[in-house]
Amino acid sequence: MIKNADRIYYGGDYNPDQWDEATIDEDMRLFRKAGINLVTLPVFSWAKLEPSEGVYDFEWLDRLMDKFLENDIKVCLATPTTAQPAWLSKKYPQVLPVDKQGRKRTHGMRVFFCVNSPKYRERAAAIAEQMAKRYQNYPNLVLWHVANEYGTYCYCPTCQEKFRQWLKARYGTVENLNRQWHTCFWGRTVYDFDEIMLPTELNDDYRFNPTVNLDYMRFMTDSTIECFENEARVLRKYTPNVTIQTNISGHIEKLDQFKMTRHMDIAAWDNYPAPGADPSFVAFKHDLMRGLKNGESFMMQEQSPNQQNWQPFSKLKRPGEVRMLSYQAMAHGSDTCLFFQLRQSIAGQEMYHGAVISHAGHENTRTFRECAQLGMELQKIGDAFLGGRTPADTAILFDWDSWWALEYASKRCLPNDDFNYLKKVSRFYKAHYDRNLPVDLLSVEGDFTRYKVIYAPYLYIMKPGLPEKLKDFVEAGGTLVTTTLSGLADENSKAVFGEYPGALREISGIWVEESDPLTKEERNRMVMEGGFLKGAEYSCMYQCDIIHPRGAKVLANYGDDFYKGTPCFTVNDYGAGKVYYLGTEPDSAFLDDLAAALAADAGVRPPYRADAHVELARRINDRNDILFVLNHNKQEASLDLETDRFTDLITGKQVTGVTTISPNDVMVLKKL
Amino acid sequence: MIKNADRIYYGGDYNPDQWDEATIDEDMRLFRKAGINLVTLPVFSWAKLEPSEGVYDFEWLDRLMDKFLENDIKVCLATPTTAQPAWLSKKYPQVLPVDKQGRKRTHGMRVFFCVNSPKYRERAAAIAEQMAKRYQNYPNLVLWHVANEYGTYCYCPTCQEKFRQWLKARYGTVENLNRQWHTCFWGRTVYDFDEIMLPTELNDDYRFNPTVNLDYMRFMTDSTIECFENEARVLRKYTPNVTIQTNISGHIEKLDQFKMTRHMDIAAWDNYPAPGADPSFVAFKHDLMRGLKNGESFMMQEQSPNQQNWQPFSKLKRPGEVRMLSYQAMAHGSDTCLFFQLRQSIAGQEMYHGAVISHAGHENTRTFRECAQLGMELQKIGDAFLGGRTPADTAILFDWDSWWALEYASKRCLPNDDFNYLKKVSRFYKAHYDRNLPVDLLSVEGDFTRYKVIYAPYLYIMKPGLPEKLKDFVEAGGTLVTTTLSGLADENSKAVFGEYPGALREISGIWVEESDPLTKEERNRMVMEGGFLKGAEYSCMYQCDIIHPRGAKVLANYGDDFYKGTPCFTVNDYGAGKVYYLGTEPDSAFLDDLAAALAADAGVRPPYRADAHVELARRINDRNDILFVLNHNKQEASLDLETDRFTDLITGKQVTGVTTISPNDVMVLKKL
Amino acid sequence: MIKNADRIYYGGDYNPDQWDEATIDEDMRLFRKAGINLVTLPVFSWAKLEPSEGVYDFEWLDRLMDKFLENDIKVCLATPTTAQPAWLSKKYPQVLPVDKQGRKRTHGMRVFFCVNSPKYRERAAAIAEQMAKRYQNYPNLVLWHVANEYGTYCYCPTCQEKFRQWLKARYGTVENLNRQWHTCFWGRTVYDFDEIMLPTELNDDYRFNPTVNLDYMRFMTDSTIECFENEARVLRKYTPNVTIQTNISGHIEKLDQFKMTRHMDIAAWDNYPAPGADPSFVAFKHDLMRGLKNGESFMMQEQSPNQQNWQPFSKLKRPGEVRMLSYQAMAHGSDTCLFFQLRQSIAGQEMYHGAVISHAGHENTRTFRECAQLGMELQKIGDAFLGGRTPADTAILFDWDSWWALEYASKRCLPNDDFNYLKKVSRFYKAHYDRNLPVDLLSVEGDFTRYKVIYAPYLYIMKPGLPEKLKDFVEAGGTLVTTTLSGLADENSKAVFGEYPGALREISGIWVEESDPLTKEERNRMVMEGGFLKGAEYSCMYQCDIIHPRGAKVLANYGDDFYKGTPCFTVNDYGAGKVYYLGTEPDSAFLDDLAAALAADAGVRPPYRADAHVELARRINDRNDILFVLNHNKQEASLDLETDRFTDLITGKQVTGVTTISPNDVMVLKKL
Repeated sequence: MIKNADRIYYGGDYNPDQWDEATIDEDMRLFRKAGINLVTLPVFSWAKLEPSEGVYDFEWLDRLMDKFLENDIKVCLATPTTAQPAWLSKKYPQVLPVDKQGRKRTHGMRVFFCVNSPKYRERAAAIAEQMAKRYQNYPNLVLWHVANEYGTYCYCPTCQEKFRQWLKARYGTVENLNRQWHTCFWGRTVYDFDEIMLPTELNDDYRFNPTVNLDYMRFMTDSTIECFENEARVLRKYTPNVTIQTNISGHIEKLDQFKMTRHMDIAAWDNYPAPGADPSFVAFKHDLMRGLKNGESFMMQEQSPNQQNWQPFSKLKRPGEVRMLSYQAMAHGSDTCLFFQLRQSIAGQEMYHGAVISHAGHENTRTFRECAQLGMELQKIGDAFLGGRTPADTAILFDWDSWWALEYASKRCLPNDDFNYLKKVSRFYKAHYDRNLPVDLLSVEGDFTRYKVIYAPYLYIMKPGLPEKLKDFVEAGGTLVTTTLSGLADENSKAVFGEYPGALREISGIWVEESDPLTKEERNRMVMEGGFLKGAEYSCMYQCDIIHPRGAKVLANYGDDFYKGTPCFTVNDYGAGKVYYLGTEPDSAFLDDLAAALAADAGVRPPYRADAHVELARRINDRNDILFVLNHNKQEASLDLETDRFTDLITGKQVTGVTTISPNDVMVLKKL
Repeated sequence: MIKNADRIYYGGDYNPDQWDEATIDEDMRLFRKAGINLVTLPVFSWAKLEPSEGVYDFEWLDRLMDKFLENDIKVCLATPTTAQPAWLSKKYPQVLPVDKQGRKRTHGMRVFFCVNSPKYRERAAAIAEQMAKRYQNYPNLVLWHVANEYGTYCYCPTCQEKFRQWLKARYGTVENLNRQWHTCFWGRTVYDFDEIMLPTELNDDYRFNPTVNLDYMRFMTDSTIECFENEARVLRKYTPNVTIQTNISGHIEKLDQFKMTRHMDIAAWDNYPAPGADPSFVAFKHDLMRGLKNGESFMMQEQSPNQQNWQPFSKLKRPGEVRMLSYQAMAHGSDTCLFFQLRQSIAGQEMYHGAVISHAGHENTRTFRECAQLGMELQKIGDAFLGGRTPADTAILFDWDSWWALEYASKRCLPNDDFNYLKKVSRFYKAHYDRNLPVDLLSVEGDFTRYKVIYAPYLYIMKPGLPEKLKDFVEAGGTLVTTTLSGLADENSKAVFGEYPGALREISGIWVEESDPLTKEERNRMVMEGGFLKGAEYSCMYQCDIIHPRGAKVLANYGDDFYKGTPCFTVNDYGAGKVYYLGTEPDSAFLDDLAAALAADAGVRPPYRADAHVELARRINDRNDILFVLNHNKQEASLDLETDRFTDLITGKQVTGVTTISPNDVMVLKKL
Repeated sequence: MIKNADRIYYGGDYNPDQWDEATIDEDMRLFRKAGINLVTLPVFSWAKLEPSEGVYDFEWLDRLMDKFLENDIKVCLATPTTAQPAWLSKKYPQVLPVDKQGRKRTHGMRVFFCVNSPKYRERAAAIAEQMAKRYQNYPNLVLWHVANEYGTYCYCPTCQEKFRQWLKARYGTVENLNRQWHTCFWGRTVYDFDEIMLPTELNDDYRFNPTVNLDYMRFMTDSTIECFENEARVLRKYTPNVTIQTNISGHIEKLDQFKMTRHMDIAAWDNYPAPGADPSFVAFKHDLMRGLKNGESFMMQEQSPNQQNWQPFSKLKRPGEVRMLSYQAMAHGSDTCLFFQLRQSIAGQEMYHGAVISHAGHENTRTFRECAQLGMELQKIGDAFLGGRTPADTAILFDWDSWWALEYASKRCLPNDDFNYLKKVSRFYKAHYDRNLPVDLLSVEGDFTRYKVIYAPYLYIMKPGLPEKLKDFVEAGGTLVTTTLSGLADENSKAVFGEYPGALREISGIWVEESDPLTKEERNRMVMEGGFLKGAEYSCMYQCDIIHPRGAKVLANYGDDFYKGTPCFTVNDYGAGKVYYLGTEPDSAFLDDLAAALAADAGVRPPYRADAHVELARRINDRNDILFVLNHNKQEASLDLETDRFTDLITGKQVTGVTTISPNDVMVLKKL
C-alpha cells in the first residue's frame, strides 16, 4: 500500500503546463470544491523541463508545487519520461523504436521510445535525478510515478543485440538453446547467438514460431523492468520512504505484470472499460490487480470522469456511473480514486476525453457535480478501508506465459484460431462474481495452500515446479479444476512428449487422445452423469477433448458428434483432494452450477444473500471490516444482513437485517 | 466560363498515340458522326513527346492537330505531366514520392510524382513551354488542361523540408507554433522547426494528431497549387486568352478545391458515380463544383460513356443513363459534356473502361448510338444555356477544413468514429433537391448576403472572421441552421476554451454541455414541441448534444435515454434573423419537413410543381432562361408549367401548362 | 510414374533428426506395424548436415539409412534446401528475399530464399551433390525430392535484374516490348530495359498493370524451374535412373505447374483440403495433377493423417476420413499415399499438425489404428493399379496464363472484381464428377484430338496457335463449350482489337457487344429456347454478355434486365462440330443438365450406374482394369455392376450385378 497514506487519494492527472496562472488558480478553487486531495504531474512535461540537453527549467513547476502546498493537495510526482522531447529524438535517433514491420519510427506519439536504448535511459535517469533532488523534501510528496503505460515493443538493432545477450544469459550455450527451443524442427538450428533474429513480420516468426515469440515477450518484460528500475533506483536513493510505481495500461497482455509489479511498491492501473462492459469483467481486472502483489491494495491510477475518446463509440458515462465504477474499484482493493484528467485539454488526441473540469471551464456541469459529490463522500469515509484486504477461499490461476503461448505467440499454430485467454478465464471469474463469492487471481508462483478451491483454466505452460505444487495442493485436500489446453507445454512452449495432459495426467486420472476444434457456430452437448448435477444438460463450444478415463470418474459425456457418449467432464480423487477436468468450454449455466456446487462442497459462502446484480465485497484492515454493497440494478434491490449491524459511512445511518438499496446506489458499511 | 466558347463542347479524352493512321482516320469519321467537337490530348504522352531529357518529338502530334483542324474539332491541349517518363524517374529518383508508410515509391502509376520536387517542376515547366510555344497560334486551341487528377500526398525529405518552411511562413516562430498547435499536450513542444516530422504511419500522428494533420493537408493543397501554377504560368505567358484548368478527381477530399480553383480559369471535374448512386448525390457534387467559383459554370471533364472498370462491380450504364447523367451535369452548371475516353484502350488498368468507340471498333454499338444521339441533340441546343447561372436563395456551407478536421485529420480522436462529412452534408442537400429547391454550396469565405437561408452543418472549424460573418448574416434577417459539432474548434482544430458551441453560442442562444455518441444501431427520438411541426416525432442518430437553452426556444426534445425531455432542436431569435440548432442527426423525414418549413417561411419556392423524381433545374444567361426537366422515373411523369410557355430545344415542340414527360426522358425548355 | 516401383508407396515425411535412438527404434517397430514402406527425409536438415560452409556431417543420416535398410523401408531422399541454415542467411544476406512491399526479409520461415540468388543456388547444388555422391548406390533409394513447396515470389535487386534479362530474351528490343505491352497506355513507354521495375506495392503495378504482372508470374515460374534444375541436374548426373520430383504446394496459383512438371519425372502434390471440403473439389485437384503430365500417374506427397494446424478451425478428421481421402487420391491417379508426417513434432508452427505417431508416442490411438488398417489394405492391393491411367472422352482446358490474367494480375482492372478461376472452373468439373463422367484437365498445349467434348471456361488468353487448334478440333467434329471472358486477350493480356470474343468469334458464330457485371447478390434468368432443354429455366450470375448471333442458334435468352430476351447461350455448327457459348455463369442445375446432354450427344457414359455420392473411378494399366468405388454417403448405397465380374482387392470377395457398399466405405474392384 501507499506509505503514510491517511485517506483515499482522490484526484488525478493534471497538466497545468497548458494553462495560465488565472486558470490554475481557478482550478485550485474547483479542486477544493470537489474534495480533490492529490494531483499527478508532470507526466508529459519533459520537453518543458529540459528544453535542451542537460539544461533544466523547474521554476514553473516550483510555483505549482507551492500552490499545491497552499491548497493542501498531495502530489504524485511523475517522471516525465513517457514522452521524450523532440530535440532528443532528433539528436539521438537511436532512442526511437523500430516496429514489428521493421520500420524505424519518427518522433511523434507518447511511449514512443526503445526501452533498451542506453541514451534514453541515460537522459531519463538524469531528469529523474533532477526531480528527486529538487523535491526530495517537498512535504506533500506522497508518491512517485515513473513514466506512463509502458508496453512499447521494439525491434531495433539495440534490442536485437540485447535479446541475444538475454538468451545467452538464459541458455548459456547455443546447444542448450537449440535443445530448449527444439530448433531441429524446420531446420532452425543456430551455431551462434548472432544468428538469432527477432520475431517480426520480416521473418514471419511473429506468427509461426511460438518459442521465440514467448522468449521475446519475456525479454520485453525484463527490458521494461530494467527501464523502470533505471529511474526507480534514482528515486529510491533520494526518497527511500516514498512509494514508487508506474501505471499499467489497458494492454496488460504486453508485459508480465506479476514480474513488473515485483519492482513496484504498489500495483497501479488505468481502468477504461468499454461502454456497456459487464461489471464482472471490470471486477475481474481489479481482482487481477489485487492479485499482482498477493492481495495487497492497489491504485486505480486513471479512469475517465466521463466519456473516453478512443473507443469507436465513446458513450457518455450515465448519471451515477462514475460513482459506481469508483466504489467498485475501491471495493476490490483500490486505495485511490484518480481520474485522467482533472482539466480537459483543448488539443491533441484526447481533447474530447472527459475531465473533471470540462472545456466549459466551470463547475456547473453534471460531471463536476458528480465528482464533487464523490469527493465529499470520500472525505466522510476517510481512511476506513485503507489497506484493507479481501479474504478469499477460491483462486483462479492467471499466467502470462500461458496467455502468450496460447494467444499472441502462437497465431496460426493452434488447431483453433479463435482463442481469447482473458475472455475465457474471465468466464470462470464471472460465475463466482455473480454469487458474490470472492476470488483471488493467483500467480502460478503464489501460495496455493491458502485456498480450498483452485481453478486452473487453460494452464498451458508447465513451468518447472508447477506440476509438483498442484499435486501437493490436491494431495493435501484441495479441489483443483482444470481444462482443455492445460498441461500441454513446457516452459518453452514445447509440447509434452507423451500422453496429454502431460504433467497433469496423473492427478487428473485421464488421457486426452485428441481435441476437436469447433467453429464459432458449432456446439456440442454435455450430458451429465455420475451424480454430479445428474440429469442436467449443458451446451459446450470451442473445442472437445476426446478423453479416456485412467482412474477418473466420468461426470458428463458428449451428446453429439462421433465422440458422442465419451467423457467431457471428469473428476479424479487424488490424495485427500479432487481434480476436475473440463475437456471443453461449457456454457455459462454450467459454470454457474459448477461454481455453486464446488463452493458448497468446500463450505465457501458469500458474505450475505442479496438480489441478483447486487455486488458485495469486503475489505478488512486492522481497524475495520467494511462491506461494499453496489446495486447494479436500475431498480431498488434488497439484501439480508441477518443479525449483523453496520453503519453506512456515506449516509451515517445504521443498517441491519433485510435492507433495501436504491437503484444504482452504493453503501459502504462498517461492521459494528 | 470557357473563353470564346460558342457551343457546348462535346467529346473527351483521346489518346491517339496508341493507334495507327488508318484507325485515326476512322476515328475522325466516327467523331463527326457522333457530333464530337472537342478532344482532350495528349494527357499521357510525355514519354513519347520527350524521349530523353530535353529532346522533343512533336511531329506526330502536329499531324494529329492538322487532322483536328480539317475535321473542325476543337482541342483541349493537355500538358502530359501526370505521368513522367520512366527515364525521368530513373535519372532523378527524387521525383518519386514517399508514401504515408514511409516507403519510397518506384516508377509505375500515373500521378506518381512529388508535387514539391524541383526536378519534376523543372521538367514539367519545360515541356509545357515547348507545347505552348508550338501551338500558341493553333486556331482550334480552346482550352489548356494541366496534368490530371492531382492529389498525391507525399512524405519525402523534400516535402518534409518544405513543410517546415511552410510552417515557418505561417507561424513565424516556434513559440507561436507551439501556442497555436498547443503542443504542450502530450509534451510535443518543439524548439526548432526541424524537430517537426510529417504526420505518417511512422509516428502515428496521421491518426492521433489532428493539428499537424490539418496543416499538412493545407500544405499539400498549397504545394499542389504551386505545382499547377508552375505550368499555368508558362501557358498564360504564351496564350493569355486561352482558358486554363485541371480536372478534379473523385477524391475531392485530398485538396481544398475552393483554394485550388482560385488558380483555375474554370472548375473542372470527373464525374464517376458508383453504379446505382442516388441522383441527388450526383447533383450535390455538381452543385459543389458550381459553388467553387461562386456559381460560375464549370466543366464536366470526364465521365464514362458506359461502365467504369475500377468499381467492385462496374455495371453497364443502362439505356439512356449516359444521356440522363449528361443533361444532369449541364442542368447543374456544366458547359461541357466530355468522356473518358473516345476510343477504348487495349491494355492497362482501364482496358475495360467504357469508351465511345469500343474494342469492337465500329459504330454499331448501343454506346456509340447513344453518344451520337446526344451529340445531335447538343448540336441543336447550340449555345442556348452556355454560361448560364442558377439563382438560389438557399446555401449550404461546405468547408474542407471542417471536413478534414472532423474526418481525415482526427481518426481515433472524436467520440464517434463513424463520421462521413460528405454523406452527412449531402443529406441536407437532398432534402432540397427532392423538392427542386435550388441550393448553392458555399465557401465560408463566400458572400452570405445573397441568401435567405444558410445551412451550416458540422461547421467545426471557426476560421477568423467566420463567427462575425454568421452573426451579421443573422442580424440582417437571415435564417441560419447549424448542427452538432459546429463551432467547436479554432483554425488549428483546437477546442474552444469555454462553453460549446463556442463562437456560435451567442447567436444560437444555447449551451451544449455534453454529447452522447450513438452506435450505428442506436436511435433516439425527436419529440416536437413549441409549434414547429408540433406533435410530430422523428428518429435521430449519430450523437445527441445535451443542450441548455440560454434564450433559445425549444422546438424538440429527446424522447429517450437519461436526457429524455431535454432539448435537441432549438431556435433563437437574433437581430432580425433566426438561428436553428440541431443537436443530433435527424432522419430524412425531419430534414424534408425542415427544408419545406424554412423555405416556406423564407418565401423560397421551386420553379414549378412536378411529380416525385422529376428533377427541375434552371440556367439563365444573358440570352435565355432555360429549364431542364429530368424524369428519373421508369414511368411517365408530369409537371405543371402553369401559364409559362417554352420551346423544347431537343424536340423543337412548344410546351405549356400540365405537361407529361416520358420515362427516363429529358426536356431542355427555353422560356419564351 | 515412379521408376522401378513395385507397390504403392505408403509412408511420408519423417524428421528423425529430432529424436533420440530409442525413439527412432520404436518408430521402426511402429512403421512395420502400420505397413509403412517409404520415408521422405531429411527435408529440413540442411543446418544439421552442413554446420558451416562446406563442412558436412552425414554420419547421423548414414546410421538412419542403415536402419531403413534393415527394416526394408524405401527412401525418398530430399535435398534439404527448402530451409537454408541461419549461418548462410547471415553470411550471405543476398539469399534472403525482398517481399512485394519492398521489405528485405530476415532469416526465419522455410521456403524463405530468393530462387534467383546465385549464392543460394551454389550452396544448394553443393549439398545436393554431397547427398547424391554419398547415397547414389544406396539400395533403397527410390525417389529424389528437391526442396519443398516452391512458390516464394521475390522482388530483390537480383530478381529485378534477372527480370530485365528475361524480358530482353523474350522481346529482343524495347521497341518490341513497348508494342507487345502496349506501353503507350498511361505513358509507360520505356527506352531501356533498365527502366522496367518489378510490379510491387511500391509502384502499384501489382494491382493496376496486368501485362507486367503476367510476365512477372511467368518469370517466377521460369526462375523456379531454373532453381529446381540447379539441383535436379546434379542428382540426374549421379543417379540417372532415380525419379526426381518436388512437391506442389496448395498455392498452385503461384507457378505454372504445366511448365514446372515438364522438368519433373512425376508430378507430386500436397493434398490439404479444408475441413468439410466438397469431395468434388478434392477430386478436381487430383485430376489437375494427373493432367499435368498428360494423364500419367502422380504422387500424393503429403496429406495429414489427422487435423491440420493452420486452418482457422483445424477439425479432426472424422473416423474413416483419412482412408476415404487416401483411396480417392489413388482412384484419381496417385501411385503413393504419403503423410506429413510420421511422428508429430513437439515444437514450432506445426506441433499440433496430425501425425501417424502422435505426441502420445504409442500405437493405441485412433489415428494410428486407421493408418495401420490402410497400410494392411495397401499391402494386399500391392501393385494392382500402379501406373494405371484413366480413360476420358471429356476435357476441361486449364490455363495458368488465363488464371493469372483474370485474377492475380488484374486486380482492380476487370469490370467484376469477384473472380475466382479455380472455383469457377471446378463447377464445370463437378457437373461431371457428380455423374461419374471422367474428365481430364488439359493444358492448352495438350492434344485436343483425343476428346469428344472440350470445355474451355474463362479461356481468356489466346496464345499463338490456340485459336487454330480449337478450330481444328471443332472442324473435325468435336464439341467445344466456351464462356464469357474467353478469347478476349492475346498472350500479353492485351484486349482484342475488334469484336468479342476475338479469335473465337468465327467458330462461335456470335458477337458479344457488352458484358454486364452482376453483384454477388444479383441474379438473372436463362430461359431455354430452341429445343435444347426446352422450357426449362435456370438462374445465372456473375456477368451477362450481351450477344448478337452471327450464325449461331440461340439456345437460351435472358429473362430479366434491359437485355431480357437477348441470347445468353448459343450453339454454332462449325465444320463437323459444334461450339456452345455461355455468356453468363449458370447455376449448378444448368451445368448438370448441360454435362448430361452433351455427354449423351457424344455417347459418353459413366462406367456404371450408382446412387448419388457414390464415386466411381477407373485406373487401367497393362495388367488390370481397376474400379474404385467410394461411398461418400453416411448410409449404405448401391451400384449396378451389370454383368461384369470383379474381385474386391480389399476384402478378396467377388462382386457382380447390383452391389451394396457400406457407409463411408471403399471398394477396389479388379475386373475379371
